[in-house]
Amino acid sequence: MDKKYKLIYFNVKGKGEVIRLIFTYGKIPYEDVRIESSQWPALKPNTPFGQLPYIEFDGKTLAQSNAIARYLAKQCDLTPTTDWEQAQADELSDVVQDIKTIARPVNPVYEKDEAKRKSLLPDVLAAVTQLLDKVEARLAANTSGWLVGNKISWIDLLFFTTTEYYVTVFGKEVLAKYEHQHKLYTRIKQIPQIAAYLEKRIDTVI
Amino acid sequence: MDKKYKLIYFNVKGKGEVIRLIFTYGKIPYEDVRIESSQWPALKPNTPFGQLPYIEFDGKTLAQSNAIARYLAKQCDLTPTTDWEQAQADELSDVVQDIKTIARPVNPVYEKDEAKRKSLLPDVLAAVTQLLDKVEARLAANTSGWLVGNKISWIDLLFFTTTEYYVTVFGKEVLAKYEHQHKLYTRIKQIPQIAAYLEKRIDTVI
Repeated sequence: MDKKYKLIYFNVKGKGEVIRLIFTYGKIPYEDVRIESSQWPALKPNTPFGQLPYIEFDGKTLAQSNAIARYLAKQCDLTPTTDWEQAQADELSDVVQDIKTIARPVNPVYEKDEAKRKSLLPDVLAAVTQLLDKVEARLAANTSGWLVGNKISWIDLLFFTTTEYYVTVFGKEVLAKYEHQHKLYTRIKQIPQIAAYLEKRIDTVI
Repeated sequence: MDKKYKLIYFNVKGKGEVIRLIFTYGKIPYEDVRIESSQWPALKPNTPFGQLPYIEFDGKTLAQSNAIARYLAKQCDLTPTTDWEQAQADELSDVVQDIKTIARPVNPVYEKDEAKRKSLLPDVLAAVTQLLDKVEARLAANTSGWLVGNKISWIDLLFFTTTEYYVTVFGKEVLAKYEHQHKLYTRIKQIPQIAAYLEKRIDTVI
């Protein structure tokens, strides 16, 4: 059986990017399988739950990006230290999901009608801002600069992908408003293996 | 500071019910605070992320139902044993969330227009059935009868609430199709502290 991890996902950052970043951070070799939309209908029935991403290794499969992230985090010291810190990371991971769900109607990948996106933008941005304000307050209160506890954990890498996402959808000026999120984003970008990965990453909009 | 857990949620089963079941299973005393819709606008700005449910204890708060469930599971031996089993529980918890998201347009609580619900039902039920088939196959493959590993874990209690949910939305005949889900549902119902809780539970539709 193949011991090497394989990530199966579309050719976008999306929900798969946090998994790529965890593999990268942990220096875990993996095969980055990128599926084109044209291949998806044939592949879908053979996936664990009819969705991407999923990972394969040792003849096993695991789907759902946060489940994968939490599992891989345990393989490379990206799990928060205490039960309480783990709970806070879990909480933030679902807040991140809420941010993406709220932003979906103005995401150019899903909503092609620019006039419609523009009309929805103010309300969507207001709702997203409320959540980002809460994340900022939490970061500001943690002197380590990481989202939970005293060390980097998978939730920091997940939030990095969220930051890239909201900058794409709402513009750089939103990130500029958040001093601590900007610091965290820059800090992660400068981790040597992450910097090397970002340098050569396949360029996709989202 | 108050060491006792307090659950703040609406007066429905919904996302809060798994938390009530974990407290019940673990015989952990808690205050079951049920918010009426009329109270919500005033309360919302004071919640951790503008959402319910959340729990309070020791002057701390924790939001997001799966984060709360995973945390409380650690307090009462409802965490799956191995990293891999924990990952499988995490995976299923997000599949459960997908089932609820797919079913939302035909949920009578959110969609009041019965004709609209009826027109959407076949497609929604087909999509939900695909996921329930996968869960059934997984249960059938696990000789313990639990969703992961050899013992009950929080994912079994979460899936119990999902079963109640899909029976409410789609009818008992859907559960009747799934032998292993029916067995799991019955098995959980018969756990003495759960049985006692269900006996006196406040009756709500969803």
